[in-house]
Amino acid sequence: MTPDNRIAICPGTFDPVTYGHLDVIGRASKMFDTVVVGVVNLPWRKGNTLFSAEERIAFVKEATRHLPNIEIETFSSLLVTFARERGAMAIVKGLRAVSDFESELQMAQMNRSLSGVETLFIPSSSTHSFIASRLLREVARYGGDVSPFVPAAVAKRFIGKFPGGGL
Amino acid sequence: MTPDNRIAICPGTFDPVTYGHLDVIGRASKMFDTVVVGVVNLPWRKGNTLFSAEERIAFVKEATRHLPNIEIETFSSLLVTFARERGAMAIVKGLRAVSDFESELQMAQMNRSLSGVETLFIPSSSTHSFIASRLLREVARYGGDVSPFVPAAVAKRFIGKFPGGGL
Amino acid sequence: MTPDNRIAICPGTFDPVTYGHLDVIGRASKMFDTVVVGVVNLPWRKGNTLFSAEERIAFVKEATRHLPNIEIETFSSLLVTFARERGAMAIVKGLRAVSDFESELQMAQMNRSLSGVETLFIPSSSTHSFIASRLLREVARYGGDVSPFVPAAVAKRFIGKFPGGGL
Amino acid sequence: MTPDNRIAICPGTFDPVTYGHLDVIGRASKMFDTVVVGVVNLPWRKGNTLFSAEERIAFVKEATRHLPNIEIETFSSLLVTFARERGAMAIVKGLRAVSDFESELQMAQMNRSLSGVETLFIPSSSTHSFIASRLLREVARYGGDVSPFVPAAVAKRFIGKFPGGGL
Amino acid sequence: MTPDNRIAICPGTFDPVTYGHLDVIGRASKMFDTVVVGVVNLPWRKGNTLFSAEERIAFVKEATRHLPNIEIETFSSLLVTFARERGAMAIVKGLRAVSDFESELQMAQMNRSLSGVETLFIPSSSTHSFIASRLLREVARYGGDVSPFVPAAVAKRFIGKFPGGGL
Amino acid sequence: MTPDNRIAICPGTFDPVTYGHLDVIGRASKMFDTVVVGVVNLPWRKGNTLFSAEERIAFVKEATRHLPNIEIETFSSLLVTFARERGAMAIVKGLRAVSDFESELQMAQMNRSLSGVETLFIPSSSTHSFIASRLLREVARYGGDVSPFVPAAVAKRFIGKFPGGGL
Repeated sequence: MTPDNRIAICPGTFDPVTYGHLDVIGRASKMFDTVVVGVVNLPWRKGNTLFSAEERIAFVKEATRHLPNIEIETFSSLLVTFARERGAMAIVKGLRAVSDFESELQMAQMNRSLSGVETLFIPSSSTHSFIASRLLREVARYGGDVSPFVPAAVAKRFIGKFPGGGL
Repeated sequence: MTPDNRIAICPGTFDPVTYGHLDVIGRASKMFDTVVVGVVNLPWRKGNTLFSAEERIAFVKEATRHLPNIEIETFSSLLVTFARERGAMAIVKGLRAVSDFESELQMAQMNRSLSGVETLFIPSSSTHSFIASRLLREVARYGGDVSPFVPAAVAKRFIGKFPGGGL
Repeated sequence: MTPDNRIAICPGTFDPVTYGHLDVIGRASKMFDTVVVGVVNLPWRKGNTLFSAEERIAFVKEATRHLPNIEIETFSSLLVTFARERGAMAIVKGLRAVSDFESELQMAQMNRSLSGVETLFIPSSSTHSFIASRLLREVARYGGDVSPFVPAAVAKRFIGKFPGGGL
Repeated sequence: MTPDNRIAICPGTFDPVTYGHLDVIGRASKMFDTVVVGVVNLPWRKGNTLFSAEERIAFVKEATRHLPNIEIETFSSLLVTFARERGAMAIVKGLRAVSDFESELQMAQMNRSLSGVETLFIPSSSTHSFIASRLLREVARYGGDVSPFVPAAVAKRFIGKFPGGGL
Repeated sequence: MTPDNRIAICPGTFDPVTYGHLDVIGRASKMFDTVVVGVVNLPWRKGNTLFSAEERIAFVKEATRHLPNIEIETFSSLLVTFARERGAMAIVKGLRAVSDFESELQMAQMNRSLSGVETLFIPSSSTHSFIASRLLREVARYGGDVSPFVPAAVAKRFIGKFPGGGL
Repeated sequence: MTPDNRIAICPGTFDPVTYGHLDVIGRASKMFDTVVVGVVNLPWRKGNTLFSAEERIAFVKEATRHLPNIEIETFSSLLVTFARERGAMAIVKGLRAVSDFESELQMAQMNRSLSGVETLFIPSSSTHSFIASRLLREVARYGGDVSPFVPAAVAKRFIGKFPGGGL
């Protein structure tokens, strides 16, 4: 038997959200009744992210407005604790590349061992396979144009972060 | 919105079914309303498998008897054609290792491009990570004991295939 | 010092040529004076390819007609022998994935050790990363539509190879 | 406690033995009292190897003559059966590359599960990392010079196998 | 010839020791006369480890009490310097995954080039393949239960490090 | 058509330059009219490198003196911005290993997407495959001998950086 409201968690730092993330969230939203986007927020590590938790949530909210079954929340506990509190059936993550795969597999096996919560992997669209938030932050810092990879609102806000192209 | 009867396809040759396969099928059966185990059967390639399609189906049937929502079928078309005919939401596959991952990712992207059908990956349990049907066929052929890796009915039948331990 | 006519070899079986191959050939043609597309043709292995050497060459010729500096030849010797006979500066190959990479690296080191001929790798466009001739032959055999992945002339000819979708 | 005569098995098809194999055998001979080189010999698959079992053994014998603690034997059973019959402490294998590693890891875990026999991996010398028997057979077939990669006796015998450079 | 007292070094930070480490140490102790567990201790980097050198040594000592041929030492030099000072025949390391493998291979080749000291790799048991000290420190920090992965004494001490589950 | 002066960029931090880097630069210098060695220099990150920009440039200059077509420059912008300013046809990088490959592929696809600038990969010589500046800095810090891996001038300067072998 399966529950009436099947909930999936899409976790991440989303610093900031990219078209790669949004592709995974959108595809998950067609397979589950509710997709909870879990935004990692560690108050004692403030300053470790480029965008504040508020900004990161706002970007996701704006970009998923057209999807009826998305909820956005922050969490600062273990991912599996958050997943159980939300009654999630599974954690859903995108997979881009082999190097992603192995550490993700290790975490998935650990998370299942800790809590029984399953992880499902969605292969990223090939056109998004090279988009990574970490890489985009570098590109933007040096004045590169990130607008093909993130929603317009995010791209605009990036410019404000690095006036003069970061130099 | 998501459909009332969510169907997942677990495809494979299952020559023969192993505890690794059964782990994936069992876990998928908790996340979907119906799991269709799709057994590849290519009549024009008879003799390419160690066990006949009838045997391979019987093994899966026997080993999934305790699960209420499993259906077992053969198919000889493209996987995505079969998946669409069955109205499946997703193809569900286990992932053991990096070397699996890359060819699986390639096939998943091809299948999505051909048909829109999604593939979801479930990481194999670490205890099953080294079990592969191909390897077991070799072990049995040379008289090794495969009983820790396959259901008892399969192990018994293996012995009949290679009287004298294959030598 | 570098020679006046810099020649690169793009080798392959091209059974059949795909948009992935054509992307590599086109990009190489901008970096070298002449690109020799080397089509592997082993007469004593006739029947091992789906398309004949004549067909495979015709497909490449048709699809590279717009490029001024392409030459197409078959070879049945060691690649490095062919490369030296043609006076090539380098072998140029596309790289799709990690699993490609390692055997390609091994062959490149062997080829350099045998002959001094260098191999240069061009990363495939992300949109072509999942296209492989081997996979397309399977798709076509079972009646799938390969037209997004190969030139129109190739797609049409595929249908003739497998009337009734291969079944 | 550890035994008086520590035996390691170095298994392989050795079709033919290369400087890469000999590097692993030589290094193992410094760490174990006896190294048994186990040459796979499947009489019912005669013709699947380029060199006969007798030739393959003779090549290894000739090339390890200077090492005092090497024994050479053929086996046609499961590797772990052979290892136990010989009282081996461990199977010792060279590792060249990531793609080797994963299937080797799978086999090592299977072998330990079947029999308790351990597998130890020795990383190949970087200078031998691209030498593989399979690749050398191809090179020799097309008339390439394999003498930098195999002992002189093997290189000479290769030429006899492919008069006229294989063409 | 091989020495009378064959010594292997099992190096690591052991911050803290896990069942994965102990599996490798225990298996090495059956293959060598003496296994020296080398605990990295860099006094000028105090504070970079969660547990002090004294704690890390005590955990290993406690957990290897049943093994007759284990010695535990700290070192703050190059690993190969330490290995030569101890007269070790080989460095022995566990290998969990492909991503481990490549940097380990690089270090092994560097170490052999620097000093001639060999590195042998033992494939981790599949049941331990996802256990990593780094991951456990994260789990414990957020209040997760690490007791299935480390000895009881370590698990208890973890709780003291993060009262209130780290939050 | 291709330009009269074909320029390739070999970018890196070169902290310090190794025989691995020099192998790539030397081989590129035979395939392009001009090779611009681009030394990353981020003034606002002073202290992040072991050697100053001046030292890193001097080492490259000294070690490439025998090559007629090398230019050495620092840059502190995006690599693709620098490549376009210099009119480069391609970025040329060495590839050592699978783990290098995947992040390099991601960057190459991003760089091409940002600017159209191509990246070509040269497989490293097998004898240099385990040399990495990061590893050498560690070796030198602990008093290891790095002279087989870097030019004599670099090796000498390393000693000055860590008097007493770093301890």
